[in-house]
Amino acid sequence: MSNSLQKSVIKSHVAVAQNASGRSLNVPIYRISDELPGPTVYIQSSIHGAEVQGNVVIYHLIQALKTHQIHGDIILVPNCNPVGTNIKAGEYTLGRFDPVNGTNWNRGYFYDETLVNSFVSSVDAQDTTSIIKQKFRQQLKQSIANKLNQPWGLGLAQQLNLTLQHIAIDADIVLDLHNGPVSTRHAYIPEYAYAAAKQFSIPHCIFIPNKFAGALDEATFCPWWSLQDALKETTGRSHDFGVEAFTLEMGSQEVIDFDEGQKDAESILGYLACKGVLRYEDFRPSDMERVGVKLEDYKTLYTDFGGMVEYCVAPGERVNKGSVMARVLNIDELDNPDAVHEVLAPCNLIVMLHFPSASVLSGTQLYKCFTQYWTL
Amino acid sequence: MSNSLQKSVIKSHVAVAQNASGRSLNVPIYRISDELPGPTVYIQSSIHGAEVQGNVVIYHLIQALKTHQIHGDIILVPNCNPVGTNIKAGEYTLGRFDPVNGTNWNRGYFYDETLVNSFVSSVDAQDTTSIIKQKFRQQLKQSIANKLNQPWGLGLAQQLNLTLQHIAIDADIVLDLHNGPVSTRHAYIPEYAYAAAKQFSIPHCIFIPNKFAGALDEATFCPWWSLQDALKETTGRSHDFGVEAFTLEMGSQEVIDFDEGQKDAESILGYLACKGVLRYEDFRPSDMERVGVKLEDYKTLYTDFGGMVEYCVAPGERVNKGSVMARVLNIDELDNPDAVHEVLAPCNLIVMLHFPSASVLSGTQLYKCFTQYWTL
Amino acid sequence: MSNSLQKSVIKSHVAVAQNASGRSLNVPIYRISDELPGPTVYIQSSIHGAEVQGNVVIYHLIQALKTHQIHGDIILVPNCNPVGTNIKAGEYTLGRFDPVNGTNWNRGYFYDETLVNSFVSSVDAQDTTSIIKQKFRQQLKQSIANKLNQPWGLGLAQQLNLTLQHIAIDADIVLDLHNGPVSTRHAYIPEYAYAAAKQFSIPHCIFIPNKFAGALDEATFCPWWSLQDALKETTGRSHDFGVEAFTLEMGSQEVIDFDEGQKDAESILGYLACKGVLRYEDFRPSDMERVGVKLEDYKTLYTDFGGMVEYCVAPGERVNKGSVMARVLNIDELDNPDAVHEVLAPCNLIVMLHFPSASVLSGTQLYKCFTQYWTL
Amino acid sequence: MSNSLQKSVIKSHVAVAQNASGRSLNVPIYRISDELPGPTVYIQSSIHGAEVQGNVVIYHLIQALKTHQIHGDIILVPNCNPVGTNIKAGEYTLGRFDPVNGTNWNRGYFYDETLVNSFVSSVDAQDTTSIIKQKFRQQLKQSIANKLNQPWGLGLAQQLNLTLQHIAIDADIVLDLHNGPVSTRHAYIPEYAYAAAKQFSIPHCIFIPNKFAGALDEATFCPWWSLQDALKETTGRSHDFGVEAFTLEMGSQEVIDFDEGQKDAESILGYLACKGVLRYEDFRPSDMERVGVKLEDYKTLYTDFGGMVEYCVAPGERVNKGSVMARVLNIDELDNPDAVHEVLAPCNLIVMLHFPSASVLSGTQLYKCFTQYWTL
Repeated sequence: MSNSLQKSVIKSHVAVAQNASGRSLNVPIYRISDELPGPTVYIQSSIHGAEVQGNVVIYHLIQALKTHQIHGDIILVPNCNPVGTNIKAGEYTLGRFDPVNGTNWNRGYFYDETLVNSFVSSVDAQDTTSIIKQKFRQQLKQSIANKLNQPWGLGLAQQLNLTLQHIAIDADIVLDLHNGPVSTRHAYIPEYAYAAAKQFSIPHCIFIPNKFAGALDEATFCPWWSLQDALKETTGRSHDFGVEAFTLEMGSQEVIDFDEGQKDAESILGYLACKGVLRYEDFRPSDMERVGVKLEDYKTLYTDFGGMVEYCVAPGERVNKGSVMARVLNIDELDNPDAVHEVLAPCNLIVMLHFPSASVLSGTQLYKCFTQYWTL
Repeated sequence: MSNSLQKSVIKSHVAVAQNASGRSLNVPIYRISDELPGPTVYIQSSIHGAEVQGNVVIYHLIQALKTHQIHGDIILVPNCNPVGTNIKAGEYTLGRFDPVNGTNWNRGYFYDETLVNSFVSSVDAQDTTSIIKQKFRQQLKQSIANKLNQPWGLGLAQQLNLTLQHIAIDADIVLDLHNGPVSTRHAYIPEYAYAAAKQFSIPHCIFIPNKFAGALDEATFCPWWSLQDALKETTGRSHDFGVEAFTLEMGSQEVIDFDEGQKDAESILGYLACKGVLRYEDFRPSDMERVGVKLEDYKTLYTDFGGMVEYCVAPGERVNKGSVMARVLNIDELDNPDAVHEVLAPCNLIVMLHFPSASVLSGTQLYKCFTQYWTL
Repeated sequence: MSNSLQKSVIKSHVAVAQNASGRSLNVPIYRISDELPGPTVYIQSSIHGAEVQGNVVIYHLIQALKTHQIHGDIILVPNCNPVGTNIKAGEYTLGRFDPVNGTNWNRGYFYDETLVNSFVSSVDAQDTTSIIKQKFRQQLKQSIANKLNQPWGLGLAQQLNLTLQHIAIDADIVLDLHNGPVSTRHAYIPEYAYAAAKQFSIPHCIFIPNKFAGALDEATFCPWWSLQDALKETTGRSHDFGVEAFTLEMGSQEVIDFDEGQKDAESILGYLACKGVLRYEDFRPSDMERVGVKLEDYKTLYTDFGGMVEYCVAPGERVNKGSVMARVLNIDELDNPDAVHEVLAPCNLIVMLHFPSASVLSGTQLYKCFTQYWTL
Repeated sequence: MSNSLQKSVIKSHVAVAQNASGRSLNVPIYRISDELPGPTVYIQSSIHGAEVQGNVVIYHLIQALKTHQIHGDIILVPNCNPVGTNIKAGEYTLGRFDPVNGTNWNRGYFYDETLVNSFVSSVDAQDTTSIIKQKFRQQLKQSIANKLNQPWGLGLAQQLNLTLQHIAIDADIVLDLHNGPVSTRHAYIPEYAYAAAKQFSIPHCIFIPNKFAGALDEATFCPWWSLQDALKETTGRSHDFGVEAFTLEMGSQEVIDFDEGQKDAESILGYLACKGVLRYEDFRPSDMERVGVKLEDYKTLYTDFGGMVEYCVAPGERVNKGSVMARVLNIDELDNPDAVHEVLAPCNLIVMLHFPSASVLSGTQLYKCFTQYWTL
């Protein structure tokens, strides 16, 4: 059902940094709501500056959300890293890390396990799930605010990450839109939210454990997942706080594709329909084959030698053990049989992504692959 | 006719620079000959470090030349810029210019017009074309050697260029293998060697005048072309020195493709057959449509605004005036009609190449296009 | 005489580009005037993004100009390249060239010699110097505006340069504030404005001919100097249009020094006093030794080998032929006498600047030096 | 006592990577010994490519060691990161991290705590310290070798680190020579080797706990320190394995200074004399003031705003709380009192180092400082 009345989108900007000219670097925030009860959803894109397709996805999401009734509140934060997007090195965008110090723009979110432990001891046996959730969220929010107010200051990437997390912390559902180098679509799904794997229309799912390594999805679900576990253990009661977070890899970096973005948006809208935010009549997950892998079986294939590489397998392709995955040209041996090295598949696998340049040093990550995968 | 005896390839290395560790950076040189009379051919690849496909082309050329009789001498210099190939900036290769000072690796070749003038006055009326050619070549070679021996030294890019040119100066035919960013195959053809446009199997030809702007093809043909003109004017005699030079754009940078490289090699072998180096029974130009353009009508389309770009036209496509060539997403206006800017074709054109990144500042070269083109 | 009334400074911003987020990149423009007759003065700094000291100089100039009576109008444009200032590559600023394509930020200004020739033929024998100046300036301004409005667009560096030049074209005096890598203070003086060499308090002067190579000082004086010469030749009359332009090198890049900036500002104020803009009682050139060199004798010393360099001579120092200027450590020969190469002075010279890094490839510009210099 | 007979230095090279041209990147290894009993000493420099002064220190060490009797074996590995040294980005060296992925070149060494636990359980009560040391070293070496032989390969930085660590693991004393950005000399001293702080001639010492964060010094001492503790706890016996490791910060990056390198070498020779490797009559620590700080009190001061910075405090200077440490120029406010922000010292401190560029974004690490320091 399309809403005949186009609702308004509330737009604001948040300053996340200052550049060397002393000017503020702002991130746009779009908020859409019909003031109906439902979860708060936070979606950001382009924390890695070259991974821009998520911005088109958010564009399409806005068009759809403006014309469909929403149960809950939607917060959309496109192009959330104005520093990363603007660091060119040659024709490409050096978007994965701070060019000053190498810090990954996606590893400075905050999670302190001790917070869970101290909070658990403060929970009253009578507290409802809802009250616990509200109190804990407030503590999380305060701890991020404190972190942002260090007397000696904070590094740029962490300042950026925490400013975004301080907004995202209010959400029940957090989606962080990324891209791989040359990549097929895939998603990181926390193991405890296994069901969500079938709610997105994404063919490849990596199931991740309750472990914090710095990313926004982990920073979002780890505290709640840990709290659920701790409360179960200490009080015997099961609480479901309904907080989920996912990293979605929307194809290849350095690409803007409006048609593909439309499909990506529909994938997210289908998930939101499953969560009650939209009407299932309007949006739903695709009926498709889905493959899953444990994070520990999501493997990186490095090259042992440097040279010029032909990638023989496209992202999404299945490869048998021993098949040729790459050929490396050896420019000093073009006149003899050593001219070409072949890199073979170490086992049966599905390629998710490969390196985007034909020139590689030894130790370059050629491919990332699903091994030991299963059909969902 | 395949030669049953595989001839030997003579391989050597030339040091073109030293790196910051004080080690020599070497370029491999492959020489192939059957000691039969014919032109000397010099082919190099990858003077721009990210433009690597030419190395595969040379690989395939070596395989073919080893098994076919050659009239003349072939000098093959793959990966001729060991500095440029090895400067990574993020995952990509910063190959077009010296990262220290921005100097284009392809603009430091040598041509001094005054050399032609002084030489002309020394030509004896009785000198045959062959004698003139030999004398002039010697003077050119000496002038490059002198340039390489400046008492105050020389910049890195120029040192590299002149070291290569000092080898190439002995050749009658010089091919410089390049790639565009995201590009279809095209060639730069000097106007005086117009016939060659139909001797390569390349669908798009840019005809360039007798003007030196720093590249190897120009540095190679300008002296000879100018000498022919000057001799005609002063002595009334026409000399054809048979020196030709071309820049061939073998598709997109950052790509190694063995199958495409095989076709590129065959295109060059067909041209060499036309020049008598190989047997026309074995290799010949493809029967194909070819389109030409004058250099002055080979136009660059810049964007007036920064943002995230979808390239709507693939290299090789023809576009009518007014068609949408690119869409630029405006992340601050995603909720209103200004969300997308369209870049329109200023006239009828064929796209040769486009920028390889979706993130652009204003003033970025989005496309290079044939306008006012004709069928050859 | 200090003005007891602080005059107001009129501040505006001009957009010179858009970044990849689609946001305008602005340059601040400060205008100061007492509405008294006199020349228009344009001063910009930091067209090369790492050369920031000129911004402090402009800061000090504003403090002084606010409290002293001005004859003429002053336009101050600090940090005029907001792109260049903000490209970090590691801890340093990659400020000399566009990181996308290597284009020097200081070579895209406009001068078309044919404009002078066509204008000369339109000059009326009765026209006064003032009328000629006004008409010619209008034509120059129009030609820059036309250039900025190409239907196919314009490259980023040129767009930036022309936008600035369109403002500077109104000025009679143009100062472009730069820095060297590790550098002593020096100035580029057009030969026809030789007298100015003693009006700045700068110890080293490079005298440059009437030749355009892309920089703002040349783009400013070449048309007027050429016009003066052409009118002299065609009409026999001497006109002095009073347009001067200088590039001032204010010490080392990557340095902000308020105390040194105060002295640099006083040097400029002394020059302006000589030109009648300020009172000679308040400011005047220092009584100091000044050394001059012709541009052709301002030499660059390149290193023939790569390695790790100790710079043995400080900028400003005089060196005798044969003295050790640099030691290059050879890490593969630390156990034998080849451990250290010495780079010797090829002749008597004064060092102006040296490379700022200890790690160099062969072909790196180690030093720039005055040779054949004289005392002014 | 100088040895009249110059002993030979045994030089070899180890390949640590291949570049994109397919060529091996080698590191030189110098070994010096008089075949007399004593500790094995491993000293490397320039794992961060721009931190080159250690190479000069090793040069001077070789000169001294060739002429003095050595008890033990010395392994010297200058310029141990041939990738990092050769990545230029503009004039400077991008040496701290892999330009492809941002990985710090100094965080991929190996230490697995579980190795200690499993080894402890295998120790025989009768085993002497010497036998335990030998066995444990062998296990450590094997575990590094295993790590280097992953079937899926290894990242470049880790490959480099482990190849070096596989050599260093044989040593009893490991020195890793680094530099700060603009820095005074300081050293990282493991708390358990507190005495060494007075054995180097370095005025500033940071005492670090038994915690592994990826660097070579930690990777070296953590296993042995942990083993000592574990054996004490399980067997009650105290073992002193005599393994020590230090990171020495030899002044500023991007600088080669032979005279300072001589002093740095003497500082190390004095320490080696304290360890019995050299004669105390020949070398000994300087009598000097030394200041110490706990790692947790070694603080980083970040800037909250971007702009152009004057560093008002030199490395080594003591600053009182509230003093001006930096001035940040605000180019949009040059005409009013907001033109300059001052950054004040948050407490009494000693500056160790500051950022090397005047242009900073918000969140840049301006200074690193000793707080709560004491005199040793």
